[in-house]
Amino acid sequence: MTLNIGVIGTGAIGREHIRRCSQVLQNARVVALNDINRSNCEQIVRDFDLQAEIYDNAHDLITAPEVQAILVTSWGPTHEAFVLAAIQAGKAVFCEKPLAVTAQGCMNIVEAEMASGKKRVQVGFMRPYDSGYLALKSVLESGEIGEPLMLHCAHRNPEVGDAYTTDMAITDTLIHELDVLRWLLKEDYVSAQVIYPRKTRKASSHLKDPQIVLLETTKGTRIDVEIFVNCEYGYDIQCEVVGEAGIARLPEPMSVQTRRAARLSTGILTDWKKRFIDAYDVELQAFVNNVLSGNMTGPSAWDGYAAAVAADACVAAQRSGNIEPIAMPARPAFYD
Amino acid sequence: MTLNIGVIGTGAIGREHIRRCSQVLQNARVVALNDINRSNCEQIVRDFDLQAEIYDNAHDLITAPEVQAILVTSWGPTHEAFVLAAIQAGKAVFCEKPLAVTAQGCMNIVEAEMASGKKRVQVGFMRPYDSGYLALKSVLESGEIGEPLMLHCAHRNPEVGDAYTTDMAITDTLIHELDVLRWLLKEDYVSAQVIYPRKTRKASSHLKDPQIVLLETTKGTRIDVEIFVNCEYGYDIQCEVVGEAGIARLPEPMSVQTRRAARLSTGILTDWKKRFIDAYDVELQAFVNNVLSGNMTGPSAWDGYAAAVAADACVAAQRSGNIEPIAMPARPAFYD
Amino acid sequence: MTLNIGVIGTGAIGREHIRRCSQVLQNARVVALNDINRSNCEQIVRDFDLQAEIYDNAHDLITAPEVQAILVTSWGPTHEAFVLAAIQAGKAVFCEKPLAVTAQGCMNIVEAEMASGKKRVQVGFMRPYDSGYLALKSVLESGEIGEPLMLHCAHRNPEVGDAYTTDMAITDTLIHELDVLRWLLKEDYVSAQVIYPRKTRKASSHLKDPQIVLLETTKGTRIDVEIFVNCEYGYDIQCEVVGEAGIARLPEPMSVQTRRAARLSTGILTDWKKRFIDAYDVELQAFVNNVLSGNMTGPSAWDGYAAAVAADACVAAQRSGNIEPIAMPARPAFYD
Amino acid sequence: MTLNIGVIGTGAIGREHIRRCSQVLQNARVVALNDINRSNCEQIVRDFDLQAEIYDNAHDLITAPEVQAILVTSWGPTHEAFVLAAIQAGKAVFCEKPLAVTAQGCMNIVEAEMASGKKRVQVGFMRPYDSGYLALKSVLESGEIGEPLMLHCAHRNPEVGDAYTTDMAITDTLIHELDVLRWLLKEDYVSAQVIYPRKTRKASSHLKDPQIVLLETTKGTRIDVEIFVNCEYGYDIQCEVVGEAGIARLPEPMSVQTRRAARLSTGILTDWKKRFIDAYDVELQAFVNNVLSGNMTGPSAWDGYAAAVAADACVAAQRSGNIEPIAMPARPAFYD
Repeated sequence: MTLNIGVIGTGAIGREHIRRCSQVLQNARVVALNDINRSNCEQIVRDFDLQAEIYDNAHDLITAPEVQAILVTSWGPTHEAFVLAAIQAGKAVFCEKPLAVTAQGCMNIVEAEMASGKKRVQVGFMRPYDSGYLALKSVLESGEIGEPLMLHCAHRNPEVGDAYTTDMAITDTLIHELDVLRWLLKEDYVSAQVIYPRKTRKASSHLKDPQIVLLETTKGTRIDVEIFVNCEYGYDIQCEVVGEAGIARLPEPMSVQTRRAARLSTGILTDWKKRFIDAYDVELQAFVNNVLSGNMTGPSAWDGYAAAVAADACVAAQRSGNIEPIAMPARPAFYD
Repeated sequence: MTLNIGVIGTGAIGREHIRRCSQVLQNARVVALNDINRSNCEQIVRDFDLQAEIYDNAHDLITAPEVQAILVTSWGPTHEAFVLAAIQAGKAVFCEKPLAVTAQGCMNIVEAEMASGKKRVQVGFMRPYDSGYLALKSVLESGEIGEPLMLHCAHRNPEVGDAYTTDMAITDTLIHELDVLRWLLKEDYVSAQVIYPRKTRKASSHLKDPQIVLLETTKGTRIDVEIFVNCEYGYDIQCEVVGEAGIARLPEPMSVQTRRAARLSTGILTDWKKRFIDAYDVELQAFVNNVLSGNMTGPSAWDGYAAAVAADACVAAQRSGNIEPIAMPARPAFYD
Repeated sequence: MTLNIGVIGTGAIGREHIRRCSQVLQNARVVALNDINRSNCEQIVRDFDLQAEIYDNAHDLITAPEVQAILVTSWGPTHEAFVLAAIQAGKAVFCEKPLAVTAQGCMNIVEAEMASGKKRVQVGFMRPYDSGYLALKSVLESGEIGEPLMLHCAHRNPEVGDAYTTDMAITDTLIHELDVLRWLLKEDYVSAQVIYPRKTRKASSHLKDPQIVLLETTKGTRIDVEIFVNCEYGYDIQCEVVGEAGIARLPEPMSVQTRRAARLSTGILTDWKKRFIDAYDVELQAFVNNVLSGNMTGPSAWDGYAAAVAADACVAAQRSGNIEPIAMPARPAFYD
Repeated sequence: MTLNIGVIGTGAIGREHIRRCSQVLQNARVVALNDINRSNCEQIVRDFDLQAEIYDNAHDLITAPEVQAILVTSWGPTHEAFVLAAIQAGKAVFCEKPLAVTAQGCMNIVEAEMASGKKRVQVGFMRPYDSGYLALKSVLESGEIGEPLMLHCAHRNPEVGDAYTTDMAITDTLIHELDVLRWLLKEDYVSAQVIYPRKTRKASSHLKDPQIVLLETTKGTRIDVEIFVNCEYGYDIQCEVVGEAGIARLPEPMSVQTRRAARLSTGILTDWKKRFIDAYDVELQAFVNNVLSGNMTGPSAWDGYAAAVAADACVAAQRSGNIEPIAMPARPAFYD
């Protein structure tokens, strides 16, 4: 049984997902492509030796009878419309983050999906598929460290370009923690505060870097996330959970330990693409498997909405300097 | 393009490889099965919902026209004949270790394969596909630690059953190091010595445990391997390469670090099957890909022969207490 | 040249310092003792075989001609008067924390010491004498990680008694960080905020535990300190400095690494007294040496005052939930 | 109570011990000096502001009435005669290694000491006073890892001068392991074998480097020690004890962990003098305390003899390539 997939958007991420479907995953076949630039599609067909139709209109791809599932990897502002169209066409859809550029857009998708009566949407949050986060969650669920009370996290990039703005620390960077920490704790957020430490001289003049985001959850668990996107030394994701009886820490990526030049050391990644490279494979295979088995278990439209609501509050907190509430409606039973 | 595979032997390892072909790998399909116990095959057909013919005679399976490649996962003493038959049938064959139970048997396969004019055999040594060993090899090849001079290795199991005998420390346990260290260093062995330390009280009365094997390579590199199969604390594979300018160490398997009950710790595996679980997937996918592309790159019949010759010398050294030479003919250009 | 020391207060800490002077340090001799309970003094004279006078009145001890320097290890509320008396008597004085129970009390000492024209006071903050903090400071000063931007710290005890109150998290526990981080950064604090995470069920009903204190320094460096005094797993002091070019972390105390029972681990201390045991020796030896050489270099009365001012603001922040300013007068040149 | 010490030999090590006695230790005073070069003594008297007599003849120093104990830190070949003279004078003597340059010389001292009826000799092996080795021994004695079966050790220096010869790998380098491992295991050696791995290009043409020494103890415990004196990367002492139930490893020296330039690392020492710097203090303080209390507990003349016998066998094994027996008489009850 093979899933026939249509891909909307063949930029860097789209291309990677097409490679995955063609060369890594089981039971996936890319049969249709769309891009605002048709020649990108032609190039990909050649590169991966695909038997795939090229559509000039994404909506035609969505409704094409040979297409069973859609990957949305186009420009962010187009996501909402394509996902809604896929739902309307009764097709499963994997949408790269953001699900929509506003919380209301996400809610529109939630409502459409619920109205359609069936879960069809998976959002491209890959960290819940990372073996490190899965191992961490497993330790939490074993009860070994007791109930979680605090999380100390960091999201560090060696550098970012000049186009990276202060609010992108939330919408592009923190967004991953906003999703994965909800998943890890099974708790929603209730408030956010943002602190601006002394600024690194490596950051653009317009960018506040680093930032510290403080989150509070429904159970009172406190989370601090250091966001430092010009940290220079590497791409480094840290997550430490302090529980009532002990502490558990996200594993460092595997690395050869060396003794050399008076240092005992392991490597730190510098390229973010390598950090979760396996998780992307697992994430997309899970989507394929779930669509084929009819049981969607990945990050849902509701999860996309929850991340968007939290991100909005964090951006508000960036601007106000205050502790901002994060107000979420109760989760519909549909998403349990 | 999918490779049609016939599997001979459906015990634990055979079953695992069938699961892999069916549920994990790309472009592989099990189409034929043989086992001395036909009902095993029937069970597997049901369990994995296979479209596969069951053959009562392994040689019929080997020559069956729908079978493009053979997996030999039967009892060790049968391997040689099945591999030779596969070569004669002009089919690719993946053979679990041992390739043959004697060095001469391995040489028979080498000669048959060379006579056939084409590489068709891959031996089931999975460690060269392990991400840790690959990372270690990459550090060696970077020149970062200079030329290797010594290797300190350990192969430890928490316990073994009473059926495990002193020579199995070589033929079942060390055999993996004998293969992977040749691959890592690109050097052959020239001598072996075995030392028996003080015996653990956890071992059977007939078993010498632990043992230390000392190997010397063509370039004079010295290797010590501690084999300790009742070490109690875990399944632990260590490999440290001491070079002219530094030391590199095989990564520990990923684990959540905890602070708990006055210990800062990470987990050590206890089940050997988990240690190289990913490597088995990569190994078998490589076989499939190589057969489909016509370019065999995995552990070859020659590698199987080399491991067998070294193992024989180690067993001789166990018995004599002396330093035993390891004599290998020059590698035929066919295997370069 | 030996320093003749009089000790006021012979409880647990006083006894330890007397042991140090008698059995560990160079050039120190305890020649006079005072305690509200004279029999304590007699016991100590016997235990350490001292040639020491017992004084029933601490002020007589302070003015006794054979006494060259005073150790104040009595009950906290008595410290201020004894230190002031020592200054008036023209004698060097080592005072266990707190220097005084109010910031104003500390300021009284600062003013008296300045009026006396000579530095004579050392406060018993031992962490600047800990080899780990010294090594951390040395990395910072090497410039290796660039300018410090953020500090992530933790101060964890396995448990505290029922008498431990919420404000003691500041005055007894955080007080050490308030001192050592000023010393580490050479910066003063400008604001404090306190956050109460979800409470551990191991804490007394009246105690808020854990707490997170957020501090800001004059240069904008941001510090978060987790205080968790019923963390169960151990006594654990963490300090991580995030700089513009890298991160440096306070070393863990030395421990044998073991592989045992499926864990690769090192020990974590559970007894706070062992954590800085060497630092106490170094601290008191430094006092002795400094008095003998006439050049006081340890934590000064001004440092005691600065810690007290910061602690007051933290306690205010505990109560208000707000960000509280920390206002310090400029440091007098006398203390440069 | 202060011990009056006379020092014979005021080269680098002598000078260090004099500094220790004067500036670090309790209850020690250097009152007499001797050196083949009198001006060295004069310099030291000035540098450390000593009240010390300078003797032109070491034997006069030994018998001088004000001298209670002797430190022998002169040239190795002179040790035996000075130690014998000290015993004859009825004085305690601390002798830097080697106790004598031959095993017979050591035995002469053992016999003289026994004849004198009282233990008076401490040999300058400092590792049993190192906090790391002490912690390791404490883990062994706790029974946590069961009975020791194997030890994997390494003694690495970044480089040595051209004067360093192949046998100095035993007599200057391994000698420390020969002592400390006997102390750690409380076992004597029964055989030695030496293996020469591929040679590093960093070593002098005449020097075999690295070397691996294999030792066997009375209980059958097997020890491998890698000696690598041009390892380039640092001064690194490793000791791993494999027991029946687990493994314990000598702690790495304390170091700040950094994340910098894509490496997560700690420092490795390069200067051997820093590695055991604290142990030298503890060792000499123990000597002083033991002499004053009349109970000698440090490395004894017998320990010096045992190390010399083992070293002789190792040198023989270097030359023969064979497994050489290590024959020791039974330890006299005098040394229990």
